[in-house]
Amino acid sequence: MESEPTRVLLAVSESTIRGYPHASISSRGAFEWTIQKIVRSNTSGFRLHFLHVQVPDEDGFDDMDSIYASPEDFKSVERRDRIRGLHLLEYFVNRCHEIGVACKAWIKKGDPKEVICREVQRVQPDLLVVGSRGLGPFQRVFVGTVSEFCVKHAECPVITIKRRADETPQDPVDD
Amino acid sequence: MESEPTRVLLAVSESTIRGYPHASISSRGAFEWTIQKIVRSNTSGFRLHFLHVQVPDEDGFDDMDSIYASPEDFKSVERRDRIRGLHLLEYFVNRCHEIGVACKAWIKKGDPKEVICREVQRVQPDLLVVGSRGLGPFQRVFVGTVSEFCVKHAECPVITIKRRADETPQDPVDD
Repeated sequence: MESEPTRVLLAVSESTIRGYPHASISSRGAFEWTIQKIVRSNTSGFRLHFLHVQVPDEDGFDDMDSIYASPEDFKSVERRDRIRGLHLLEYFVNRCHEIGVACKAWIKKGDPKEVICREVQRVQPDLLVVGSRGLGPFQRVFVGTVSEFCVKHAECPVITIKRRADETPQDPVDD
Repeated sequence: MESEPTRVLLAVSESTIRGYPHASISSRGAFEWTIQKIVRSNTSGFRLHFLHVQVPDEDGFDDMDSIYASPEDFKSVERRDRIRGLHLLEYFVNRCHEIGVACKAWIKKGDPKEVICREVQRVQPDLLVVGSRGLGPFQRVFVGTVSEFCVKHAECPVITIKRRADETPQDPVDD
């Protein structure tokens, strides 16, 4: 009696906290919540799609200490970004394999909110999951502009999952 | 290995279209979507809670043709509102029984967006589902203020489900 699996698109982002490339707190939270509360034991009923949107680093602020002497140097920056993105997706794909839920992951470049909505149009998932930094009970007016935009514009149901208050990093703007 | 069922709070509203009291198009859509895409065959993994918020009819516009001659007449208005609300909830409770998913339903009075967020705080569901009128691809900037408020303020993940474009009534403001 089971129909096609429910296709869930998760928009995931890198952490802004310095260190080894890893998933943002809100992305990990949104993923774990989706597995625990939606997928549950019904792993064959769902298919997860992970989309990571890389923002082109226009001002190159992160690369102030680098020296660019040849076109090759710029290619290596692109390659490094790509590797970071792949590490991020690897994290989620590995978790899905552990859990036993089918998945697919890919990277796009551009403005996250625009790209996410464009990918929803292309992929036509049943559900879009976006994490948001949320902030604690006394600051909870704030919802990330990406999630807000997606709720309004994405052509499918959207679930917004706020970061848990006890997972707020030292600087709540970090994630 | 299954933990406690996922508790889903659905905020449901009456249709604004004249006729026999029935659920709004967006409420029915949000409910059916939740069953098809989230609950699926895993009926024991979920528990649905239906909340209907009745707005006190302050100006009594709908009752212009009625004559009020005694305190009893006002009580009968309240009773009629109550009956309409019960019919609405009966619809969803019946559907849940057909499907075999556990549920609970209740009515509150007040401003829907405020009451929904207060009930989330009290009941602490895992997920809040709110329907919205959405409107077609060329008007999709519009999202109901109730759903927008809940996404920002409710203390749990919120899923916003827009009404399907092919279910838009003659007047898209109706529901």
